[in-house]
Amino acid sequence: MKIETKVAKFTTALYLESGRILEPYELAYETYGSLDESKDNVVLVCHALTGSHHAAGLYEGDRKPGWWDGLIGDSKAIDTQKHFVICINVLGSCHGSTGPMSEAYPSMEPYRLKFPVVTVKDMIRAQKQLLSSLGIHHLKAIIGGSLGGMQALQFGVDYPNFADRIIAMAATYATRPWTIAFNKVATEAIRRDARFENGNYVKGAFVEEGLQGLAIGRIAGHISYLSPDSMDDKFGRNYVGTDGLFELFGRYEIERYMEYNTNNFSRVFDPMSYLYLAKAVNTFNLSRGYDSLHEAILRIKAETTLISFKGDYLFFPKEMEHIAHMMDRNSQDYSYHEMDSNYGHDAFLVEIKKFEKIVKEALQ
Amino acid sequence: MKIETKVAKFTTALYLESGRILEPYELAYETYGSLDESKDNVVLVCHALTGSHHAAGLYEGDRKPGWWDGLIGDSKAIDTQKHFVICINVLGSCHGSTGPMSEAYPSMEPYRLKFPVVTVKDMIRAQKQLLSSLGIHHLKAIIGGSLGGMQALQFGVDYPNFADRIIAMAATYATRPWTIAFNKVATEAIRRDARFENGNYVKGAFVEEGLQGLAIGRIAGHISYLSPDSMDDKFGRNYVGTDGLFELFGRYEIERYMEYNTNNFSRVFDPMSYLYLAKAVNTFNLSRGYDSLHEAILRIKAETTLISFKGDYLFFPKEMEHIAHMMDRNSQDYSYHEMDSNYGHDAFLVEIKKFEKIVKEALQ
Repeated sequence: MKIETKVAKFTTALYLESGRILEPYELAYETYGSLDESKDNVVLVCHALTGSHHAAGLYEGDRKPGWWDGLIGDSKAIDTQKHFVICINVLGSCHGSTGPMSEAYPSMEPYRLKFPVVTVKDMIRAQKQLLSSLGIHHLKAIIGGSLGGMQALQFGVDYPNFADRIIAMAATYATRPWTIAFNKVATEAIRRDARFENGNYVKGAFVEEGLQGLAIGRIAGHISYLSPDSMDDKFGRNYVGTDGLFELFGRYEIERYMEYNTNNFSRVFDPMSYLYLAKAVNTFNLSRGYDSLHEAILRIKAETTLISFKGDYLFFPKEMEHIAHMMDRNSQDYSYHEMDSNYGHDAFLVEIKKFEKIVKEALQ
Repeated sequence: MKIETKVAKFTTALYLESGRILEPYELAYETYGSLDESKDNVVLVCHALTGSHHAAGLYEGDRKPGWWDGLIGDSKAIDTQKHFVICINVLGSCHGSTGPMSEAYPSMEPYRLKFPVVTVKDMIRAQKQLLSSLGIHHLKAIIGGSLGGMQALQFGVDYPNFADRIIAMAATYATRPWTIAFNKVATEAIRRDARFENGNYVKGAFVEEGLQGLAIGRIAGHISYLSPDSMDDKFGRNYVGTDGLFELFGRYEIERYMEYNTNNFSRVFDPMSYLYLAKAVNTFNLSRGYDSLHEAILRIKAETTLISFKGDYLFFPKEMEHIAHMMDRNSQDYSYHEMDSNYGHDAFLVEIKKFEKIVKEALQ
């Protein structure tokens, strides 16, 4: 399928959880499949922190498909012959939706650190506006992993009648200090990098030579996306130093992997967006705005599929299980699946074969 | 007890595992208790990466005792009324023993990046030289945690007749890529910090304003010393930002903890030593120099006490258990204790009450 990004522009105000207002704002998004006349075949896919709205298919001339291409497409688990799939770049990101390096009205200067903090609640409110503008007022399903899973859950809590089903993977009910600490490495490394200039860098300044602070922070990120066992399997104690083991800067294979991936990343992702999206992850707490987590969860009316991965060291299975236990006590309509995987948190991106059947059945 | 640091100077060559030679070299150390005439009451204590030879007691005018003061002293588990306890600063450290910022002979310039890589095998060989110079050729026990536990195990393997007993805590048989990855954050953050000047900074340059690269790396270190559960207990989702939750740089309590501890640390620890000691941890592998891990472990003749901590996310209990299984199959004299703890890797420093009985009995 031929894929292109659309951008929706809103001149109405978006009221944020902080009390601040975003106006105007834009959201970049992609769609796959066709919208039924009755508009009752819509599946919303939510992306993770460094993901984008490019969830499936190939751009013209591109070789790398969207991040969940294995799951979304004709005859795939999220079948685009049946469903109209939409994926929207989250507020605060750097892939086309309004974020900290977007131009603020009326100065037309980038917001930079004046951009308001956005939360998962804000992200989904914006997405709901976009769907409304397309005449879509009810969804068949909402699905996502990690920050995407948080969005799916938040939709279920904040708008109980909006979707028939939510499928949340590798997420949590509230971000724990363990994850906040991993984000802390990145935010400190970015802020303390002289080239970050306290946010006053030229937009796109790091395309040639990535921001080292972001690369360093991303190493910590990659630790949290893998797991001790997955690293054993993938890298072991393999050594790739050319001058032997006793060379100070000789590298083990795990070190080379970290360098390669993080240096590349720091060229393509905006550090300011990283700060804002990390903040959105840190502030995620389903109970905020409600009397208790129990009350928040109790609001969910959608059929809920919860999927966790055994080796997830960022959002541990017991966190998803906690939601499942609550829904069970409330006799809510849910299923919980703890998948065996050696891929750590990344499993929601790479272990599609293991959960596609669950997704397929949930959508039938 | 009144404590003072001694320094032993060696003009003989130390042959390193790399084939390189260190000559001359110095080792800083402390002793507690009195050496028996027969010299058969010696307990060697080995310190961890950022520790020092100041394991117990108070310096004159100081208020903070040595790092294992709860374990070492009169009538304590390592009873200084009975034992002569010695703790030696490891090679490569910055607390008085020869390290990368020491003056090389004959130029009298700091070695900097010309300092040879030192390994755990080298560290213990140097310590054995120091003991010899004191006329000590046999030990009652060797005890340590983390890098200190690695030293204890390496002593047991390399010098099977040297100690009657070894007690190793919170260590492993070979460092896994998970731990190497955590070290990678620190080594990259140090190297990429402009003020590090590729090792050409003035010695002590960071006493006033710590090296930010080391502070950032240390955040990753602190993550690995704690655990998800210990962070829940200690910090939860407590927020300490003064301007409310929606302030981009407002901090959760876990973040404040990380900032406070790591900024302080970056003023007192030398970044070059950090690089060398992280390398020593990364290269630790009991089987190196032997045909297999099995063969290495089989060499141990000392009664061996292995202690791991349930919440240790740096060196997982199953790693110590692996050593125990091997010793069990070989019918070697060992005991293995997996302690309940919510303190993560740090448990070997703070949960003394939980393991002091084991240590006391082992030394009787």
